Amino acid sequence: MKEFWSDRIKNLEPYVPGEQPKDKKYIKLNTNENPYPPSPAAMEAMRSAGGADMRLYPDPESGEFIKAAAKVFGLKEDQIFAGNGSDEVLSMCFPAFFGGDKPVLFPDISYSFYLVYAELYAVKYETVPLNEDFTINVEGFLRPNGGVVIANPNAPTSIALPLAEIERIVAGNPESLVIVDEAYVDFGGESALPLIDKYPNLLVVRTCSKSYSLAGLRVGWAMGSANLIAALNAVKNSINSYTLDRSAIAGGAAALLDRDYFDKCRSKLIATRERCATELRALGFDVLPSSANFLFARPSGISAEELFKKLRENGVLVRYFNKPRISDRLRISVGTDEETDALIAAIKKILSE
Amino acid sequence: MKEFWSDRIKNLEPYVPGEQPKDKKYIKLNTNENPYPPSPAAMEAMRSAGGADMRLYPDPESGEFIKAAAKVFGLKEDQIFAGNGSDEVLSMCFPAFFGGDKPVLFPDISYSFYLVYAELYAVKYETVPLNEDFTINVEGFLRPNGGVVIANPNAPTSIALPLAEIERIVAGNPESLVIVDEAYVDFGGESALPLIDKYPNLLVVRTCSKSYSLAGLRVGWAMGSANLIAALNAVKNSINSYTLDRSAIAGGAAALLDRDYFDKCRSKLIATRERCATELRALGFDVLPSSANFLFARPSGISAEELFKKLRENGVLVRYFNKPRISDRLRISVGTDEETDALIAAIKKILSE
Repeated sequence: MKEFWSDRIKNLEPYVPGEQPKDKKYIKLNTNENPYPPSPAAMEAMRSAGGADMRLYPDPESGEFIKAAAKVFGLKEDQIFAGNGSDEVLSMCFPAFFGGDKPVLFPDISYSFYLVYAELYAVKYETVPLNEDFTINVEGFLRPNGGVVIANPNAPTSIALPLAEIERIVAGNPESLVIVDEAYVDFGGESALPLIDKYPNLLVVRTCSKSYSLAGLRVGWAMGSANLIAALNAVKNSINSYTLDRSAIAGGAAALLDRDYFDKCRSKLIATRERCATELRALGFDVLPSSANFLFARPSGISAEELFKKLRENGVLVRYFNKPRISDRLRISVGTDEETDALIAAIKKILSE
Repeated sequence: MKEFWSDRIKNLEPYVPGEQPKDKKYIKLNTNENPYPPSPAAMEAMRSAGGADMRLYPDPESGEFIKAAAKVFGLKEDQIFAGNGSDEVLSMCFPAFFGGDKPVLFPDISYSFYLVYAELYAVKYETVPLNEDFTINVEGFLRPNGGVVIANPNAPTSIALPLAEIERIVAGNPESLVIVDEAYVDFGGESALPLIDKYPNLLVVRTCSKSYSLAGLRVGWAMGSANLIAALNAVKNSINSYTLDRSAIAGGAAALLDRDYFDKCRSKLIATRERCATELRALGFDVLPSSANFLFARPSGISAEELFKKLRENGVLVRYFNKPRISDRLRISVGTDEETDALIAAIKKILSE
């Protein structure tokens, strides 16, 4: 009925995240979570935060987290903005930077939340089709626009764009803001971070949800010039003074600072990814070259939708997008070696039925 | 310079929260935090949440918290919406419900974030002046409008509006949404909750930050018809799938369910508030009748601004608003009995200097 709903939201189609099952135990390869637990230092920090001081508001500037990020990434503190997951950070970018007469550009196949943000904030946008091989069409972003949003590596394709190509897009758009969403960059992409001091129109967005094993904590951040960060703070402080709670500030900071644990988990995951891709290819699957913590694979001998359903029946969750160009593929998060063995065994069983 | 800032935000004046000092220990009576620690059950729940499962996304529907709230307040689960503090919940109400041709109404003196939300979302608004005695002018809200937002008890005045008067406003506006922000209601106000099933245009907003001693955890919620809650979910799911992290869901639920602890802390605080008001009045201060966890007092023998500064020098933080009609008053959060003794002693010392 939608009585009292504003005109703005009556026709919204919200983003639908991957299933978080409550009924039974699955091998959960559907939301690109990290199979390894968070850093022990992060767990200790989160537990310590859950005490009597929780009666007090958190630091509205998330100073402890900002300090840690500045140290780890070699930036000044005023070049970093923290938010409740990179989703919140990205959503705040839309009112902060977009909304003029020219359309914001993003790939036709990418993180589908970009389109939802544009709809919510009534920001004009156009999509730039990926090339036939699912790489990003760089030329398509070198035309008049009101902003650019690119995920690198892209999702759900898993393919990374080389830094030189990212730089072509940033350098070719001196008058509009280019956001590079690097949620998956730690798994093999080249970060645009070294370009930040050279280009005032570049904003890099990251998250603790994937490579830091903290999807449940909701910490993301943006890095760019102090001018861009000030814009994000103006939006944040017009919505919610304290977006990161005390657990998130402490746990996020500790996770960033524990580089040894981060490197160890990342290396293990990349090794498992390569093995999983090899095994899927041996089964005749077409697997795109992944620089992320997931694989985007076209099954052989069975449709993607059918395999998705049968894997679920066999206790394995993966992600299926019933959308043009990609409805013949599955996005499969990289798990542990044991989970990968179980995935491959389940696929073999299904194919032999 | 504001290069790349959208037109929408170039002239925003964000909300400024009370100071969260990092330099030294103050007696902190400036942000209406609860002087008592969270429920032991809530602390245990937050600590338990900070484990290996933090690698997994939280429940996007915050089910555990919603279930607890439904049980405690006698509602159905689809009548409750949870968010990252009541600030986030209130901010989402603006795009969800407001933005038509008629102005949204709120009191001229109230929580100043309402005005900031309206500016960010380009929602037309008009303010309705409080009466001379700082009570809400009910008649002022009974004219054509595009929505109403009222804090009850109001802030920073501390004065509660009787339920019958709230009902006059809700019943008198059948075609527009009325939001009652009950952040402070547990300290002595009458809740509008019993009216929810009678009026489809009523939304009640609450927070864990004050009466549940969890300002550092960021949990707020709204209660209303399933239709209104669906609108808020549409907005939330167009911004951030997971606004409550695992600590917040678990800690918030446990805090709601621990009614004995809640009642005990609330009773202590109300007793201290009444004693503090009596002592301030004995010093000649004009103290408004408070139904909240703070007092709004006009000092005698010294200006509010001067007393604010001198209290700070003496290690006591209170809140001063340099705004029309209220620049002669201080908002003083109610602390423990010991903090109250220190506050009164500091004021006496300052007045005798």
